[in-house]
Amino acid sequence: MKELSEAIAKWGVGLGEDIVKVDSFLNHRIDTTLMFQMGEAMAESFREDRPDLILTVEASGIALALAAARALGMLPVVFAKKSATVVQKGDMLMSSVYSFTHKKESVIRVDRKYLPAGSRVLIVDDFLADGNACRGMMDLCRQAGATVCGIGIGIEKGFQPGGSALRAEGIKVCSLAVVDRVDNGRIILREE
Amino acid sequence: MKELSEAIAKWGVGLGEDIVKVDSFLNHRIDTTLMFQMGEAMAESFREDRPDLILTVEASGIALALAAARALGMLPVVFAKKSATVVQKGDMLMSSVYSFTHKKESVIRVDRKYLPAGSRVLIVDDFLADGNACRGMMDLCRQAGATVCGIGIGIEKGFQPGGSALRAEGIKVCSLAVVDRVDNGRIILREE
Repeated sequence: MKELSEAIAKWGVGLGEDIVKVDSFLNHRIDTTLMFQMGEAMAESFREDRPDLILTVEASGIALALAAARALGMLPVVFAKKSATVVQKGDMLMSSVYSFTHKKESVIRVDRKYLPAGSRVLIVDDFLADGNACRGMMDLCRQAGATVCGIGIGIEKGFQPGGSALRAEGIKVCSLAVVDRVDNGRIILREE
Repeated sequence: MKELSEAIAKWGVGLGEDIVKVDSFLNHRIDTTLMFQMGEAMAESFREDRPDLILTVEASGIALALAAARALGMLPVVFAKKSATVVQKGDMLMSSVYSFTHKKESVIRVDRKYLPAGSRVLIVDDFLADGNACRGMMDLCRQAGATVCGIGIGIEKGFQPGGSALRAEGIKVCSLAVVDRVDNGRIILREE
């Protein structure tokens, strides 16, 4: 997606060999105009798959999920939680996820009643690297008896195996930008 | 705000004496239509205060902040983080916050360069109870040399002291709904 590629080229920073720092416009400070453009682009990719709801995981997936949900006709968004709260009294589905960014294992959870059996779910996240968060959300959908009709990603790290493995299993994965490699502080994008 | 009051009356659940459970439409599952209506209403309240950016805290403040940012002409959104990540290398401002929902102390942090000195900041959050999250964000703004031009809240718990104390200090606080009390599972709203 052109606008995202331009933002990555202009403001993204590569750290070491594998870190894509885009917190000036995507996951700490949000460029609101760009975020809604990303939502529109994601809607284009998945409209034909007729999702009933969008599932993401807190925190940085929420903005993109909401923008895509708006563009898909105001679909509901469900965000999986990473910690238990005093208000959760329901039948919680849980799955264990290793976070690349935080270097730790965490449990994501969704109240079963917000992920209805038989519903068509579009999974959305800001990043796809090893695919652990997506696997966790897919596991929640499986437990719920819901169907994953696609996975929409902001930035995919093409040099990590998550996206390829999911596609090899026949899952529709669309990423708005794919990073080929991080090289001397530069982020090299795959040509569209 | 009429639409939010109706949603609380229809789907909100009171637990015990002080818990307002609205996770079916606000902070776990999001009713996307309602969320953008809330953003519009918040923009109405703060347009005259000419904010340059919106500051919120992950995770459940992000959706409302983004909706308000859109309605205010695509303002940038900055969300304070609750945990350190491998990509944060900058000059991080930090403040300690006690969470009512999670019953624990946590540190919120913002990269100083996303909260420019002299900028006019609208603080947005989904809930206001004791005001701890708002105090933490105000502290971040103070450290940054930014001006808080208002605080916009989804649901204020009017029976907890946060909102009254902030208003007594001359801060403009607008809440889209104010809960007077929780009574036998019912959420009693203050008349507008």
